[in-house]
Amino acid sequence: MAHDILTPDFSIWPITRQLRSARVEGDMVITTWSDGAESRFNAWWLIDSSPMPEHINRDTREPTLDLSTLPDDFRAEAAAVDNSGTLIVTWSDGVTPSHYHPGWLAAHDVDSGNFTGDDRPAPRHWDTSILNAPPSFDGTAILEDDDVLEAWLDAVATWGLGRLRGVSTDPGTVQRVAERIGTSRVTNFGLVFDVRSKIDPDSNAYTALELTPHVDLPTREYQPGLQILHCLENTAAGGMAVMVDGFRLADAVAEEDPAAFAILSERPFNFANRARTTDYRWRSPVIVRETDPAAGRYREVRIAGFLRGPMAAPADEMAEAYQALRRIFVLSRDPRFQLRYVYRPGDLVLFDNRRLLHGRAAFDPTAGGRWLQGIYLERDELYSRLRVLRRQSRQRATEAAE
Amino acid sequence: MAHDILTPDFSIWPITRQLRSARVEGDMVITTWSDGAESRFNAWWLIDSSPMPEHINRDTREPTLDLSTLPDDFRAEAAAVDNSGTLIVTWSDGVTPSHYHPGWLAAHDVDSGNFTGDDRPAPRHWDTSILNAPPSFDGTAILEDDDVLEAWLDAVATWGLGRLRGVSTDPGTVQRVAERIGTSRVTNFGLVFDVRSKIDPDSNAYTALELTPHVDLPTREYQPGLQILHCLENTAAGGMAVMVDGFRLADAVAEEDPAAFAILSERPFNFANRARTTDYRWRSPVIVRETDPAAGRYREVRIAGFLRGPMAAPADEMAEAYQALRRIFVLSRDPRFQLRYVYRPGDLVLFDNRRLLHGRAAFDPTAGGRWLQGIYLERDELYSRLRVLRRQSRQRATEAAE
Repeated sequence: MAHDILTPDFSIWPITRQLRSARVEGDMVITTWSDGAESRFNAWWLIDSSPMPEHINRDTREPTLDLSTLPDDFRAEAAAVDNSGTLIVTWSDGVTPSHYHPGWLAAHDVDSGNFTGDDRPAPRHWDTSILNAPPSFDGTAILEDDDVLEAWLDAVATWGLGRLRGVSTDPGTVQRVAERIGTSRVTNFGLVFDVRSKIDPDSNAYTALELTPHVDLPTREYQPGLQILHCLENTAAGGMAVMVDGFRLADAVAEEDPAAFAILSERPFNFANRARTTDYRWRSPVIVRETDPAAGRYREVRIAGFLRGPMAAPADEMAEAYQALRRIFVLSRDPRFQLRYVYRPGDLVLFDNRRLLHGRAAFDPTAGGRWLQGIYLERDELYSRLRVLRRQSRQRATEAAE
Repeated sequence: MAHDILTPDFSIWPITRQLRSARVEGDMVITTWSDGAESRFNAWWLIDSSPMPEHINRDTREPTLDLSTLPDDFRAEAAAVDNSGTLIVTWSDGVTPSHYHPGWLAAHDVDSGNFTGDDRPAPRHWDTSILNAPPSFDGTAILEDDDVLEAWLDAVATWGLGRLRGVSTDPGTVQRVAERIGTSRVTNFGLVFDVRSKIDPDSNAYTALELTPHVDLPTREYQPGLQILHCLENTAAGGMAVMVDGFRLADAVAEEDPAAFAILSERPFNFANRARTTDYRWRSPVIVRETDPAAGRYREVRIAGFLRGPMAAPADEMAEAYQALRRIFVLSRDPRFQLRYVYRPGDLVLFDNRRLLHGRAAFDPTAGGRWLQGIYLERDELYSRLRVLRRQSRQRATEAAE
């Protein structure tokens, strides 16, 4: 059986090591590679990853084998490597033997360190000594150019933000750029929202007021993971943009005020919107730590002075809770954390709204126009697109090598 | 100043107790109510909740006062109750005095137990000894009837599911019903998805295969909070629907196999889709416990046999991890947890996709048609709509009483 077809997913798995032999020991299949190294794969893990048509639907590549129907003493009976270098495992209980692609197998060997289960770029926390301008890319061909797309998304995954310059200033372009990444998130503010001062605003964002550094929509359990702001026009006086890395702020609180860090990362604070037709609320620590050691230090921050609800805590605990909250607010205004820039027409900034705080100085709407268009997506979309772009690069490289 | 106008939000706050007097003690404002009881409100909490035009934007009701600009020794200087029963607090540092509505104040007094910070209905976990049919409501007028809407949403918040019967079978009705709740969630499967067998399926859902009980899209960090399935047609043989309360399953694992519960609630498992154009993955425990004591026992479960990726764990830890996983799979197939029903045309079931598992028996697509339309929303939308419906009921009751 052609081993390059039988993989349990749609990726290409280059063969970096050849399989020499395999054997069964207890509940493990032990493989020996051409360099003499051994790997151990648990039998349950192997049957769970079996690519056979009897075990997964080949159209969807989704498993059809229900693990709960196998007996408790299910086991591998024998393991061997065939002439094509494929691992073949035969099973107890009359289950169809499984074939494994050596490239896929090597890439999923946990003990070798090749497979941690988290393939996302590690976030790098920054202050203005590390980053004093948004990482910037040529956006003139963003709708066609996959290489710029990949570099830009990679920067956002790492730094929390990335800027495209020279993007078309046609209204609605932000939606076409978002579709290059994935599915957008619609909120009660619509799909594409226009950030400019309005007559009857339903958010302080739609005024000319200063906005202190904040994340958007922390009033939702799922505050949007990504936000795009696209500048169509900016001749107003003022309105300088500010970005702050909330993960770096969290590091600073941890270093400078461990008691405040404990409160901000453990006590639930209340977030609330206060609208006529909706009433979103959520309770969460301000700093949400990551529980998965493979995934970095923080999952998100929730910092937004104007989107909080009355704190629900015993009166005696209020003073220290407010002290901690003010501490991170004060830090978010410290110039050492504030990346500042001016939006030029054609600038488009994608940022992680669960990590970065964004804000702006007040502006004078009578002295010129300031018009940004925004859209939300989830982090999931960015990582999915990055994986597919890498899969395609790898496919092109493999085809070029053949 | 009319105290019924000056609230920091858009709700009505009936005055259940009159304020008699107020004083400052240290960092607290102490109020005495007409029944002689006292309440304590921290000064920082009070200024943070101030409804004055100098402290919040009256159009959006979002705070404009930046707590980080107040000095560390900011304090209340005096507190009094005026002739209209309003609490008036004067502040140090020349900050505008604040007026507080007595109804709002009484409703936000944590020490009285009136304000826990979480107003969501408590989930009630069920097995088939408690629930043997979906809680059902007359759906013929769902697009107009607010009382049925509120009762239905309340059932979903409590039990995790609720069924409307007699809903129009016009295709697309599911979207109009979803709009009665809030904003829908678009995914890579589109806004409204048609669940029937397809020629070239991109998910096992779009085949006639059995689907073991599962949640949808656990491959996303934010698996959809709510799902609606609306039956337009069902003359196929088979396809009996199954619902299982994942929170009750988690309770059962905790009681019957504490070691498995520890693994399922602490170890990250890998979820993955395996599609040609997207590559969503997420790592999470199968049982995600709630960290906020006010919010119940579990936040969500992630159970889907066919949407998992290869587990990333040391080979020696695989056996116990698979044992735990099989335990909850086996329990999900136990009749004591499986609520079973047949979809009739016009049935529409709303369920919590992060709590309930849904599944179906295989069906014979050649012996008749089976057509469901589905749509996703987030839990946030349900709770927001419930709050607004209750706010409107309270407003009507207040107006009727006047």
